[in-house]
Amino acid sequence: MQLMRLGAAGQERPAVRLDDGEVWDLSPLTSDIDGRFLADNGIARVQDAVASGRLQPLAADGLRVGAPVARPGAVVCVGQNYAAHAAEVGGDAPANPIIFLKHPNTVVGPYDDVLLPRGATKVDWEVELAVVIGSTARYLDSPSQALSCVAGYALSNDVTERSFQFDLSGGQWSKGKCAETFNPLGPWLVPATEVADVQDLQLRSSVNGEARQKSSTSDMIFSVSFLIWHLSQFLVLEPGDVVNTGTPEGVAMSGRFPYLDAGDVYEGQIDGLGAQRQTFHKA
Amino acid sequence: MQLMRLGAAGQERPAVRLDDGEVWDLSPLTSDIDGRFLADNGIARVQDAVASGRLQPLAADGLRVGAPVARPGAVVCVGQNYAAHAAEVGGDAPANPIIFLKHPNTVVGPYDDVLLPRGATKVDWEVELAVVIGSTARYLDSPSQALSCVAGYALSNDVTERSFQFDLSGGQWSKGKCAETFNPLGPWLVPATEVADVQDLQLRSSVNGEARQKSSTSDMIFSVSFLIWHLSQFLVLEPGDVVNTGTPEGVAMSGRFPYLDAGDVYEGQIDGLGAQRQTFHKA
Repeated sequence: MQLMRLGAAGQERPAVRLDDGEVWDLSPLTSDIDGRFLADNGIARVQDAVASGRLQPLAADGLRVGAPVARPGAVVCVGQNYAAHAAEVGGDAPANPIIFLKHPNTVVGPYDDVLLPRGATKVDWEVELAVVIGSTARYLDSPSQALSCVAGYALSNDVTERSFQFDLSGGQWSKGKCAETFNPLGPWLVPATEVADVQDLQLRSSVNGEARQKSSTSDMIFSVSFLIWHLSQFLVLEPGDVVNTGTPEGVAMSGRFPYLDAGDVYEGQIDGLGAQRQTFHKA
Repeated sequence: MQLMRLGAAGQERPAVRLDDGEVWDLSPLTSDIDGRFLADNGIARVQDAVASGRLQPLAADGLRVGAPVARPGAVVCVGQNYAAHAAEVGGDAPANPIIFLKHPNTVVGPYDDVLLPRGATKVDWEVELAVVIGSTARYLDSPSQALSCVAGYALSNDVTERSFQFDLSGGQWSKGKCAETFNPLGPWLVPATEVADVQDLQLRSSVNGEARQKSSTSDMIFSVSFLIWHLSQFLVLEPGDVVNTGTPEGVAMSGRFPYLDAGDVYEGQIDGLGAQRQTFHKA
């Protein structure tokens, strides 16, 4: 099953999509899919409700698909977590996870338009596996504890303006990561229990139908369980927080592809987590 | 007048303190001092309520003082915004504002204990002027528009672990900025209309009664109005967001003072914005 949020921005209704494509309304269970719901055993409650047959269908056709989790408390990002990507942007494979944060208001739906910031010249795509936290992660003893803090996984695009990222902020990346609409998320939050091996998922992206990124989460330098454990030594991850786990090679900054321009269409996908499609426009 | 939030963590009650020290309960006006309240003309409504004499006193004695604004959507920080501080930590004065973000769950009250992270060896203080956003700032035309987006100002301590900041995250600073309790804020949110000149405020900090930082917001490289305008070109600041505007010289990283250890007591103050006092403990 997949959790979704359907409806106009700010008015999304919680829903569950079954593997046969049917969509059921979760409004009787919760007002939203957010940290509070996830921490309150929300996914198990959805599973129970589905099993009991007491949900009502939702007429999903024509409804906008929102991000599958409501405004996160934080969006934590991991940089250069695929060796080939670190190399293509001029870095070595990092010795420790590199982290930075995005403003949580960057999160939008998976098919929403993305706005090229005013003055932008180097807008780039980054298909990523996003981890959605389900229970507080603070000083976890070992990576083996980490996945129990994960509610589920989602597809993410960590959109980036490279000159803002590298040239205009003394080397601190966030200035190129925080523009409005810069974090399409979803379409689905897939429960962690339904992902057989999070380190064996294929990621792909394309621009205007031409392939760009193609990799696997098996290529991550730091695994999801290592990352969540590691992060928990430096900050407290809370239910509903989103962790973008890094992007593989094949971005524009490699020099192999042009940066994004108005009218360009980005598509991304990860096995089992659905697909995204965004059209870029000038802000 | 000063806005405050009083009570146990997570159960703070909104209040207003008048210049004579009397504290009045704002619960009839709002459930909390947050972005929604600030955006909804909250400060003017408090001023009206005070003027009309219809508020009830609040027995503030013995109540914990919380951060003066509820969980921000984002905490945006400006680095090296005082030339003498940039120099003491080995940097040049930046050509553009350097920005990074903290996890919003770092925000605590001004007298709360601060926890030294496990494994920390270089915990440092940073007294700062914090700006609390009152209305959305997006692509402002000029710095002259910026202060109209500011609800008010507060005293902040941008607590930092220097080895986490510089050594363990490939140069991205957030890993040293996001530990729990690492952003004491308050005691007050002072309305922007009650600060005569935000670029003429004295900042001071001390550790165990010994002076550390002493400077003025007149020494900022980038003024508050410039910063808010500049940030609005790269991200959307929303009501309730907090912007830490940088710290002046006098931190431990200068080599002139020891880093913080368990039992140490930090005190900070800014003219008109009140004073903080935190005791440091091991996490």
